[in-house]
Amino acid sequence: MRDFRCRYENKALEVLVAAPTVVNPDIDLTTAGELAQQLRVDSVRSSTSAGSGHPTSSMSAADLLAVLVTRHLRYDWDDPANPDNDHLIFSKGHASPLLYSVYKAVGVVSDEQLMTEYRRFGSRLEGHPTPELPWVDVATGSLGQGLPDGVGIALAGKYVEQAPYRVWVLCGDSEMAEGSMWEAIDKASYYKLSNLVAIVDVNRLGQRGPTELSWDTDTYRRRAAAFGARVVVIDGHDLGEIDRAMREAQEDGHSQPTVIVARTKKGRGFSEVEDKENWHGKPLPPEMAERAIDELGGERHLTVRGPKPGATTRPAHPGAAAAGVKLPVYAVGDKVATRKAYGQALAAIGARRDVVAMDGEVSNSTYADQFAQEYPERYFEMFIAEQQLVAAAVGFSARGFKPFASTFAAFFTRAYDFIRMASISRAHIKLVGSHAGVEIGADGPSQMALEDLAMLRAVHGSTVLYPSDATSAAALVATMADLDGVSYLRTTRGAYPVLYGPDEEFPVGGAKVLRRSDHDQVTLIGAGVTLHECLTAADQLKADGIAARVIDLYSVKPIDTGTLTAAAAATGGRIVVAEDHHPEGGLGSAVVDALTRAGRAELSVRHLAVREMPGSGTSAELLNAAGINAAHIAAAARELAR
Amino acid sequence: MRDFRCRYENKALEVLVAAPTVVNPDIDLTTAGELAQQLRVDSVRSSTSAGSGHPTSSMSAADLLAVLVTRHLRYDWDDPANPDNDHLIFSKGHASPLLYSVYKAVGVVSDEQLMTEYRRFGSRLEGHPTPELPWVDVATGSLGQGLPDGVGIALAGKYVEQAPYRVWVLCGDSEMAEGSMWEAIDKASYYKLSNLVAIVDVNRLGQRGPTELSWDTDTYRRRAAAFGARVVVIDGHDLGEIDRAMREAQEDGHSQPTVIVARTKKGRGFSEVEDKENWHGKPLPPEMAERAIDELGGERHLTVRGPKPGATTRPAHPGAAAAGVKLPVYAVGDKVATRKAYGQALAAIGARRDVVAMDGEVSNSTYADQFAQEYPERYFEMFIAEQQLVAAAVGFSARGFKPFASTFAAFFTRAYDFIRMASISRAHIKLVGSHAGVEIGADGPSQMALEDLAMLRAVHGSTVLYPSDATSAAALVATMADLDGVSYLRTTRGAYPVLYGPDEEFPVGGAKVLRRSDHDQVTLIGAGVTLHECLTAADQLKADGIAARVIDLYSVKPIDTGTLTAAAAATGGRIVVAEDHHPEGGLGSAVVDALTRAGRAELSVRHLAVREMPGSGTSAELLNAAGINAAHIAAAARELAR
Repeated sequence: MRDFRCRYENKALEVLVAAPTVVNPDIDLTTAGELAQQLRVDSVRSSTSAGSGHPTSSMSAADLLAVLVTRHLRYDWDDPANPDNDHLIFSKGHASPLLYSVYKAVGVVSDEQLMTEYRRFGSRLEGHPTPELPWVDVATGSLGQGLPDGVGIALAGKYVEQAPYRVWVLCGDSEMAEGSMWEAIDKASYYKLSNLVAIVDVNRLGQRGPTELSWDTDTYRRRAAAFGARVVVIDGHDLGEIDRAMREAQEDGHSQPTVIVARTKKGRGFSEVEDKENWHGKPLPPEMAERAIDELGGERHLTVRGPKPGATTRPAHPGAAAAGVKLPVYAVGDKVATRKAYGQALAAIGARRDVVAMDGEVSNSTYADQFAQEYPERYFEMFIAEQQLVAAAVGFSARGFKPFASTFAAFFTRAYDFIRMASISRAHIKLVGSHAGVEIGADGPSQMALEDLAMLRAVHGSTVLYPSDATSAAALVATMADLDGVSYLRTTRGAYPVLYGPDEEFPVGGAKVLRRSDHDQVTLIGAGVTLHECLTAADQLKADGIAARVIDLYSVKPIDTGTLTAAAAATGGRIVVAEDHHPEGGLGSAVVDALTRAGRAELSVRHLAVREMPGSGTSAELLNAAGINAAHIAAAARELAR
Repeated sequence: MRDFRCRYENKALEVLVAAPTVVNPDIDLTTAGELAQQLRVDSVRSSTSAGSGHPTSSMSAADLLAVLVTRHLRYDWDDPANPDNDHLIFSKGHASPLLYSVYKAVGVVSDEQLMTEYRRFGSRLEGHPTPELPWVDVATGSLGQGLPDGVGIALAGKYVEQAPYRVWVLCGDSEMAEGSMWEAIDKASYYKLSNLVAIVDVNRLGQRGPTELSWDTDTYRRRAAAFGARVVVIDGHDLGEIDRAMREAQEDGHSQPTVIVARTKKGRGFSEVEDKENWHGKPLPPEMAERAIDELGGERHLTVRGPKPGATTRPAHPGAAAAGVKLPVYAVGDKVATRKAYGQALAAIGARRDVVAMDGEVSNSTYADQFAQEYPERYFEMFIAEQQLVAAAVGFSARGFKPFASTFAAFFTRAYDFIRMASISRAHIKLVGSHAGVEIGADGPSQMALEDLAMLRAVHGSTVLYPSDATSAAALVATMADLDGVSYLRTTRGAYPVLYGPDEEFPVGGAKVLRRSDHDQVTLIGAGVTLHECLTAADQLKADGIAARVIDLYSVKPIDTGTLTAAAAATGGRIVVAEDHHPEGGLGSAVVDALTRAGRAELSVRHLAVREMPGSGTSAELLNAAGINAAHIAAAARELAR
């Protein structure tokens, strides 16, 4: 590791160098200007010392951040958990050198950390910000997500917390090409999020050349205005203009989000790179960094603090408390769709004040409308914008809520990047996808989730649940509320018999054995509609004199390896897995992975899954065509047991 | 199945009922009006007969389609392969009753088919349109995709085919909440796609209630205009206004896409449902359908044909022909990144006139810029809009091209819904994702693809390739051009030694055995960076006296089951799989699934994968921390061989 920092001295501003001294909160623009130069210098120093990073993308926004942090962002840096702190999100997460330089400037990260830990192994100062740092709400780095996440936080602040905080989001100009940014501005205006301020750093240059709109700030203005924002176009290097725009953004008497379109120059302040192509994502070589620091007026070590939020009496997080939750009760044998049980259970756990819900304009299909009717103040319609749907959940999670987001399971594929990033954000979000698999029938493959289990299982730290009846669905919904990480519940369109009484428990990582004898010859494993098919198949097999063990694999991840290995051992390794999902990455894969991990026994597995492209038809026709109904399960079992 | 159609008679327009008679192409608006009523009646009849479907969403757009099909859409219904045919895409795919009623009206689907096949098992008249029908370019039904797909077709027509065709896309108002629609309009204006016409059916009502913008056509107008479209706002039930708007859209002398914002009423024409809530996606009950048909003037069986394209001499598809492709040649042992080999091979196969390429603003990282430099006329910069990136590829595929779309592998998660739908579209697209796994180093997890193999394997009919060296990467790029379906190539950031000479062949579904002896004790399986780690581990093991077989699993799907079972048999079932991916759904899963399917003997598998959330660091540090480097592979092998 280069000890790069030792090569520079503070040259110009010694009088201001005062390690933990806090400058008057009412910092003037001259000082902000000095801070801006410090942020640039530190962005150069940190990235050069790391040997990678994005100094030029940081330098363009340094003036914006200097004015924001010294004069507008209300943040108690000694208490990041203060519920009234403003929120600062770098949607352009690659400008992490700037963010971490801000942290140095407010005194929560030392210069030494900045110079020795940035982008290093084991450090919290990662290449792109993550909530491993207490001042970071959400992970960014996949562009077009910070602003949608910010919409979620602003929704929480305005509608549920009734908190005074503002959400400030620094956006790149390149990421304005992501549709998700427009989903965010649209929802921000729909929900009148006057507490949200997006600052677009229009530095004209993307990674491989000019951006689509270059410095056409008027087009950005017209677009953001048409999407319902109050827009201010400024010179992003004019401290007075920046200050005025940020003050205006906080003025009362309006009900719109603010978008500050700031014309800037990439690499601002160092003539060798300023507004030059081919300097994206490249640290300056050491000798060049030296010249840059000279031109920027030398190293500085200002410590500054801006305004703090006022005193608060609110708790840091909404409590779970409130009236006891009474889950719906179902009579064994009644036919109830698991998606309906989801809605009813969600409405039941709505008694907890920390539960919020949102849906992508299909709440009458997912049954999220049951919650919306009971708790309209904690329900948020996201319309058909699944990326913003998941991002809103991430934002609510950042504020300590338990967000449930629902849509058709197939349409969560629209938000996979957001789900992946939610995991990196250490967000605790609860996704509920209805209309799984070919079981949905006539609507055809565009509406059939056949990849969702694979997609969700592959997310780090995820929990994947797939109940087969209303009792287990309701119980798992209640359990999900307190799960960490990304959890996913897959529900089914059709109504199938209730299998369990109300006192049955469904621990995450468990499984239920629904048929068992001392002489089982084969194990049948299913979940959702295929579990019901397995039960029917077991009855058919019994008539043939074949005893089959049947397992309800309601917890796909984590999986109940013990129950699986016991069943495999008891049935001579003969296993039929049936799933309403493509063959890769779903139930079958989870079962085989678990058994393989558990040891080296011989296995004879028949894996029934959706292997051809389905079309329309009835549920029964499609289950049969896919080879995952009772007849096919029984046939596979007979073949194994032969 | 109800024989619903027999209950109605043609009541009003017998004079016009003339089965395969083609009305003069210059059909007047009175006839178009009659046709519109027929389309409504048939939308009601077909959905009632099917017992499901979206009649009210069809009725709102019937006037638009009647005018379009009779007077503006230039389409030779007897020759859907005519390369100069216009394209008609229902981005609101749920209005399939309307689309299929149009097909009846032009005489390519019979009334009997409409009434007995719609949404039935085995029929091509699926719940949402798919290219199983020769007049359908792309599958729709996941909202917000038809317009982006249409942008791809319009790009092909304007820039590569230089064809006279127009692309007409019927959009729903609900789907305007999808960011992807704005990515599409943005790209359409950036590329001056004057051959693209989006018709937005603003019927005010979504699935569960009013849309976000209701009938606020002015906001739609301002948004589309700000995004660069020429916008016309019309009464979508005024045939004259519709006709004028569609004529204007075709006028020369402008370089913008057109957006026709049409104010309509859902369920138009039947007073019991017109502009009423709670009628989304519901067929009318039979007795209600009877009243509807009465109110609409009764059944009609008009057959009409609009204008045809002029005579053409162009072939239906661009030929692959042109100069022979000379793939780049690499010297064994040289260090070359597979992403670089991708760019070089892509530039080489660019000699084929049917190869086109596009990238999401990272072409200098994916090396797609190598192609862009050679063939700028067939390269399309999509900026940071991965949904539109994949949709453009789907559109090019619909026109018979071989589209290669590249970005960081992690960011294809942004477009998973588009990839899933590409499979349903029977599109042949080639996706290439760079910067896989923790190997990328300091940038951190937001940039690391760790779910991409699981995601792509789960797509129906997909091919998943993961080369470890430049020779195999280049060969597989050439092979991909002619693969059917969705194919995916995963490339690596760093440069690693070339393993194969230029004459080696890499069939899809194959694998390479790089180390083999008669007394192998353990099999090591890797791909990408982990294959190189496996080779190093094998050397270390050899020094310990342990012979290891090493397999390059460059074809993850389909997989070489024969090579795997042979290796398992030869090494006592002792297998180490190492992958730079989360443990679910990737290499390990593919190997275990294949061996299980093959009827598995006892196996002892050690599956090394990325099981913790990575941070920043060097490639070596992160591979070690994840437990997937040579040292961990050798340790796992030693444990097995003990």
